[in-house]
Amino acid sequence: MQSQNHTSVILDCDPGHDDAISIILAASKISPLEIEAITTVAGNVDVERNTLNALRVCDIAGLTDVPVAQGSSKPLLKKMEVAEEIHGETGLEGPALPDEPSKQAVDQHAVDMIIDKVMASDGDITLVPTGPLTNIALAMIREPAIIPKINKIVLMGGGTFGNWTPAAEFNIYVDAEAAKIVFESGVPITMFGLDVTHQALATQETVNRLSAIDHPVSHFVVDLLKFFIRTNQDVFGMDGGPIHDACTVAYLIDPSIFDVHYVHVAIETRGEFTYGMTCVDTRGVTNREPNVNVAYQLDHHRFWNLFEKALKSYSG
Amino acid sequence: MQSQNHTSVILDCDPGHDDAISIILAASKISPLEIEAITTVAGNVDVERNTLNALRVCDIAGLTDVPVAQGSSKPLLKKMEVAEEIHGETGLEGPALPDEPSKQAVDQHAVDMIIDKVMASDGDITLVPTGPLTNIALAMIREPAIIPKINKIVLMGGGTFGNWTPAAEFNIYVDAEAAKIVFESGVPITMFGLDVTHQALATQETVNRLSAIDHPVSHFVVDLLKFFIRTNQDVFGMDGGPIHDACTVAYLIDPSIFDVHYVHVAIETRGEFTYGMTCVDTRGVTNREPNVNVAYQLDHHRFWNLFEKALKSYSG
Amino acid sequence: MQSQNHTSVILDCDPGHDDAISIILAASKISPLEIEAITTVAGNVDVERNTLNALRVCDIAGLTDVPVAQGSSKPLLKKMEVAEEIHGETGLEGPALPDEPSKQAVDQHAVDMIIDKVMASDGDITLVPTGPLTNIALAMIREPAIIPKINKIVLMGGGTFGNWTPAAEFNIYVDAEAAKIVFESGVPITMFGLDVTHQALATQETVNRLSAIDHPVSHFVVDLLKFFIRTNQDVFGMDGGPIHDACTVAYLIDPSIFDVHYVHVAIETRGEFTYGMTCVDTRGVTNREPNVNVAYQLDHHRFWNLFEKALKSYSG
Amino acid sequence: MQSQNHTSVILDCDPGHDDAISIILAASKISPLEIEAITTVAGNVDVERNTLNALRVCDIAGLTDVPVAQGSSKPLLKKMEVAEEIHGETGLEGPALPDEPSKQAVDQHAVDMIIDKVMASDGDITLVPTGPLTNIALAMIREPAIIPKINKIVLMGGGTFGNWTPAAEFNIYVDAEAAKIVFESGVPITMFGLDVTHQALATQETVNRLSAIDHPVSHFVVDLLKFFIRTNQDVFGMDGGPIHDACTVAYLIDPSIFDVHYVHVAIETRGEFTYGMTCVDTRGVTNREPNVNVAYQLDHHRFWNLFEKALKSYSG
Ligand SMILES: [Ca+2]
Ligand SMILES: [Ca+2]
Ligand SMILES: [Ca+2]
Ligand SMILES: [Ca+2]
Repeated sequence: MQSQNHTSVILDCDPGHDDAISIILAASKISPLEIEAITTVAGNVDVERNTLNALRVCDIAGLTDVPVAQGSSKPLLKKMEVAEEIHGETGLEGPALPDEPSKQAVDQHAVDMIIDKVMASDGDITLVPTGPLTNIALAMIREPAIIPKINKIVLMGGGTFGNWTPAAEFNIYVDAEAAKIVFESGVPITMFGLDVTHQALATQETVNRLSAIDHPVSHFVVDLLKFFIRTNQDVFGMDGGPIHDACTVAYLIDPSIFDVHYVHVAIETRGEFTYGMTCVDTRGVTNREPNVNVAYQLDHHRFWNLFEKALKSYSG
Repeated sequence: MQSQNHTSVILDCDPGHDDAISIILAASKISPLEIEAITTVAGNVDVERNTLNALRVCDIAGLTDVPVAQGSSKPLLKKMEVAEEIHGETGLEGPALPDEPSKQAVDQHAVDMIIDKVMASDGDITLVPTGPLTNIALAMIREPAIIPKINKIVLMGGGTFGNWTPAAEFNIYVDAEAAKIVFESGVPITMFGLDVTHQALATQETVNRLSAIDHPVSHFVVDLLKFFIRTNQDVFGMDGGPIHDACTVAYLIDPSIFDVHYVHVAIETRGEFTYGMTCVDTRGVTNREPNVNVAYQLDHHRFWNLFEKALKSYSG
Repeated sequence: MQSQNHTSVILDCDPGHDDAISIILAASKISPLEIEAITTVAGNVDVERNTLNALRVCDIAGLTDVPVAQGSSKPLLKKMEVAEEIHGETGLEGPALPDEPSKQAVDQHAVDMIIDKVMASDGDITLVPTGPLTNIALAMIREPAIIPKINKIVLMGGGTFGNWTPAAEFNIYVDAEAAKIVFESGVPITMFGLDVTHQALATQETVNRLSAIDHPVSHFVVDLLKFFIRTNQDVFGMDGGPIHDACTVAYLIDPSIFDVHYVHVAIETRGEFTYGMTCVDTRGVTNREPNVNVAYQLDHHRFWNLFEKALKSYSG
Repeated sequence: MQSQNHTSVILDCDPGHDDAISIILAASKISPLEIEAITTVAGNVDVERNTLNALRVCDIAGLTDVPVAQGSSKPLLKKMEVAEEIHGETGLEGPALPDEPSKQAVDQHAVDMIIDKVMASDGDITLVPTGPLTNIALAMIREPAIIPKINKIVLMGGGTFGNWTPAAEFNIYVDAEAAKIVFESGVPITMFGLDVTHQALATQETVNRLSAIDHPVSHFVVDLLKFFIRTNQDVFGMDGGPIHDACTVAYLIDPSIFDVHYVHVAIETRGEFTYGMTCVDTRGVTNREPNVNVAYQLDHHRFWNLFEKALKSYSG
């Protein structure tokens, strides 16, 4: 396994089943990531529930020292839309959830925490957004000086097709204006869109395999997967549950699992039917300079091996 | 082979290599199509050259009695764009072309011919547009009474990805407002977009196979394919030349070659990056009623068998 | 009075009270206009009723030899909207209307008549559109060669404020895409928008003054004005009825009545709240080259004198 | 003079000549306004210079205890545009300016100051934005709970015509997305657009009249006016300098000077030529519920009397 030692990350998320799994992956013993903070944003459910869920996942993953900061409660311009049909009423339906997390969110807005951490850094912080990009965009608007200090952004969102509309993926669709700000910022971006995240498909076979691990964390993950597989089958007619967000962390642990190409991506905010589309110039038909590393493929075998190893590492 | 006896068609086109091949397929002895008229539109090259090419193809295919009517010289609203890098300066580069076709275009505008033919019909005329949809839209604007009298429209255009922009295919992109009018007209539409037409890929192997037929028509087609394969390789980096337009006629000769699904398609005319996109609701994520039969797959073996049989039928 | 001898015009209209008055002005003995044709378009009411009204007005105004050609029944792209609350169910509510006009519309589409007349001319035909610009745009799309042969276009439409929406005047709003084509065509345009046409306000005083003329034509006009004043008061809260369309013909009879400035005008087709706005650069804040003569002011006294003289000329 | 005792205000501005005059009016002894804070935003010039100018104006007007907080350096989505041709390189060209203001901006972002002041209030704070609405919009996005706690917003911006484009006034044009957020927030808004602010026209006569007052503050204002009159003449061809922003404070001191009507206003963000237009439904042609008090007229005599009295009060 290739790894980058001590990559400092801020996980900006809306947990959310796949966000939760992504955090657990990042917190595992095989991960070289230093989690500077977890910041939350309105997305899968409202920001208050997403924050509560982030705190719960910290308890489960043993992230006692990682600050959690609550962020934006709605998109820049659009009316809020959530994804309860996928994530259930709590946003993390499936496993038994601890009622009261052992810690609370810090008394600082997510946008300020992102700004402060990045400004205080040596330019080595990677942002890992796995929800709508509202917080990241607001941080860039409020303090443009962070832009050259962000190491890179590794995000889940977009793709050459959509899941929320025929053209748009949920994270980008919820706040396309924020996405436009981020994608046009000049910060290096690696994008995990539906093309690749649909390959990270958890199935009954995955559940069986991971059920063999006997540890509270893996039990929790298995319960998340069971629920998530079912709603993705019911709502999207898929053959399993794509653990979209976890691709970002898997990539940071081992980039060699993924095929990534550097192409131009534009964010559509004006279309009548295409709001929130990531227009990925896969075939190079525009004359626009590449601006995004887009992941197209993952190595299925190695991806799940890494995943299993991460869960096992909690017992180790 | 399934066939529909005596399907009356108007071929509305911008020849164009694949338009020419489509006409030749329609005129072959295995085809049950009655070609009522060939109408031309600005597209691959300007409408005058497209008309001249249609007349030339009539000579080659022996369509001495089929009237050719010249149509619109530019899109409804957009500035004209042509595709000379694919079709060469004449629009039909490759084979030796007869300088002067033996007949001339009729002295009637394509839009009027379409209106007159449809209004005089029993409602049995199928329109087969393989260029931008300007003529069809203008006919619908000028004489809305044709709309319920058109049997159906079997067209080449669109797809779930683009070739002219990341989002849009050439025919729809050239005149998306016209496409919007046609797709929202209520006329039954079967759409052959890039998803399926890229499967109708002529390669060196195709050239070899068809070169075995010794007839002026097949020689002409082989010369078209040689040029078309090369420009598609050069411009799009493809492994051959997709004979897009011929899918429409192949479908009318034998629909069983294609997998077609009835889904909703919307035409984007407002997007900053997505003008001319056909938003195909393949996964059924909108609540919009299906309005278009979209072809997704073809049977490669049977497609080329039909094609070869058509060319051979000229000798028979 | 200044006049231009023998100005050939095509009146493209949707009568409509003020269109009818405009035709009557053009047909009066003080008018130097040669009416080559009257063409109709969907607007105030549907095109069939507008055509019937045009034929009726020909009878009243004695235009026995002027051909009337029916045109477009709907806008290029937008759904049709009519203005029955202003013009009544017939489109010409108020006076007693002859049931059956003495002549019929010719068997040629308005768009073809416009093209044929302009192409056959010496470049001396002025188009006078007083309805939506659908016919003119379609003529330009179908036969771009007319564009350099049109002498000029003197139209009613637009303004620096709206009546149908806060931003848009009815004629332009009904078919803004058509307006965009016409305004960007390069043909010289003189535009009579609401700024000036609201100054051509018929009031009870006007009715009193014109009632003194005893002739069937002036009786007809007076009956039109009575109805039109009332609906403009009821719907728009105005102090009278602005005979918008008649400004175009009054200008052609005596341009010195109007203050006209050459400025840039752009047509908005994309706005959420501003569709159909004529963006008039009155203050010269854009760097765009002037393209339209915009009328801002009329001489109230001279306008109504000309109008009265025109009605009296029917008796003379 | 009518007045509201002890109206607490936050002046959110981009000084800017008319912003400076507005602050001086608010700080005068005839003003009942309690200035809670002055917040700055990018607009006439960049936010750093606007902040410096706000601090300078505080010195001149004796606002030693009012905190000044610097805010947003660019609009939400649009590229920044400034108005140096009107306000000169410093943003406050004309008078001699103190190099170093006696105080500094506080170490808190304007958006946070607005949120903190409003949340700590009894709901009695009036926001008075006289620059682009970026700060106000960002405060509403970040802390939606302020929305019901804002007493009202009295702003300079918009109008039924434009100055930066034919359709749009500068403040709204610079950040129309922010304006849309504010205008759709539900907070009561009184809008001073160009219709009324062009009536607050300082001319040479105004300069002569105010020059009679011998006090450093009035000298400063006179020097501002001289420069501002000249640039408005040069750039816009106006007959003087409209002290737009001062209308807001004049209204808060004596609302009876202004004619205000409650109508619907929509903000256009999508138009090709109309971005940043305030679509004011003056004639009630939409069916939308009124949402903004729009000032249309001021009493010229009383306005300048109030203004003169305010300047004189500095000496008194
Ligand atoms: Ca997520
Ligand atoms: Ca074609
Ligand atoms: Ca009219
Ligand atoms: Ca200002």
